[in-house]
Amino acid sequence: SGLVLVKNPHLDLMEEDILYHLDLGTKTHNLPAMFGDIKFVCVGGSPNRMREFAQFMRRELGLAAAGEDVADICAGSDRYAMYRAGPVLSVSHGMGIPSISIMLHELIKLLHHAKCRDVTIIRIGTSGGLGIEAGSVVITDVAVDSSFQPRFEQVVLGDVVVRSTQLDKELAQELLACSRDIPDFPTLIGHTMCTYDFYEGQGRLDGALCSFSSEKKLEYLRRAYATGVRNIEMESTAFAALCGLCGLKGESCGITSS
Amino acid sequence: SGLVLVKNPHLDLMEEDILYHLDLGTKTHNLPAMFGDIKFVCVGGSPNRMREFAQFMRRELGLAAAGEDVADICAGSDRYAMYRAGPVLSVSHGMGIPSISIMLHELIKLLHHAKCRDVTIIRIGTSGGLGIEAGSVVITDVAVDSSFQPRFEQVVLGDVVVRSTQLDKELAQELLACSRDIPDFPTLIGHTMCTYDFYEGQGRLDGALCSFSSEKKLEYLRRAYATGVRNIEMESTAFAALCGLCGLKGESCGITSS
Repeated sequence: SGLVLVKNPHLDLMEEDILYHLDLGTKTHNLPAMFGDIKFVCVGGSPNRMREFAQFMRRELGLAAAGEDVADICAGSDRYAMYRAGPVLSVSHGMGIPSISIMLHELIKLLHHAKCRDVTIIRIGTSGGLGIEAGSVVITDVAVDSSFQPRFEQVVLGDVVVRSTQLDKELAQELLACSRDIPDFPTLIGHTMCTYDFYEGQGRLDGALCSFSSEKKLEYLRRAYATGVRNIEMESTAFAALCGLCGLKGESCGITSS
Repeated sequence: SGLVLVKNPHLDLMEEDILYHLDLGTKTHNLPAMFGDIKFVCVGGSPNRMREFAQFMRRELGLAAAGEDVADICAGSDRYAMYRAGPVLSVSHGMGIPSISIMLHELIKLLHHAKCRDVTIIRIGTSGGLGIEAGSVVITDVAVDSSFQPRFEQVVLGDVVVRSTQLDKELAQELLACSRDIPDFPTLIGHTMCTYDFYEGQGRLDGALCSFSSEKKLEYLRRAYATGVRNIEMESTAFAALCGLCGLKGESCGITSS
């Protein structure tokens, strides 16, 4: 049917569903009227960048009146920012798996309540590149954890549940084809490693703590590269797992720095 | 000596240290002049709330000129917000362990470069209460993970390193004594459970995914209570581990909702 799935039998029994961190709710807002025609959701860490992306999309779609600004739909909360440009929603998710997970739970319920159909969700974030030219875009085929395994370990009431982190293969190919139409836009498909930590977790030598040598760092990153990892960031495993379980066609694209 | 410690031999060899997510650096800013007299750092998730806290502190300390606003020291970045009120720094950290970890790594380096001495850091955040009156403040004696263990598992280059999550006992008692001076300010010392997920990880029945019954949820929360847990949030284990390793006198206080 193309509808966004929620897998929670309790939701049907609730009189009201409050999307706390988005400052939206089923009783306070007419979600189908506000969001029913959404077809694309783009998410990224920084709220400013997601506002700029919405402005860019409005210009691209011919929707922007001169000087008109986009309004933050979640202005009542400072946890996330949300903007729309026609059928495209642009949402910030902060940094790290816990932060993107809260946003995705509430976004997925929003799309479900709004009865959206055939929604595509794309993470457009920053990442560290591995053995590739800085500025390249990595389209993720599968997200892997810090042991290079294609899995997301979710703790549910103290027990670990392992989830798949495979992303949509067709969408990855489609996005790669789009990149081919743009000159000087180095783009590739590869694995994306997702860590819980930016400094020690990604082998950085400039955190407040660092117990390893430059050689040990390079050895770890070389092992990652050998398994197919081409970029490193902090959200893709949770993103892939939640999109997969809720029937959202999802893809993660990381623009890389060196 | 009371100085803030960094445990990273590489830092001394670097010509410049850029605190990327704070938009500060050792070459672009005179950190000792800007921050050398800081004695207290208060951190919490929401940027708006940390601005309000700085305004409150300025009034309390008699520093606020009428109508004067506090300036965001990290205005060049939208990752975190930072305000000061005399010797008190007020910094937001977003939601979840990865987000607070990035901020703390850079904050600890900032305090180190600024040659601050005898700094006390207090997390003043929201949390879910467990078997206590809503609105109570829980002062954390020790932070525990979702298995109720007093530990923080940090992945370093793919290997798990286990760290202590004990907070400063003296500071906890001092804060408890302060609360006694204020009428109707229910405050207690207890364990704080820290999870990586807000919905499934904390037994919520209203996420996009929920595979457990209300009974299973209550059973898990009862087990947590029996081990001494009095509130649940998403940052305290990483906070306790980093403060402990870097010689920062740290405490986490959670105001609870039901």
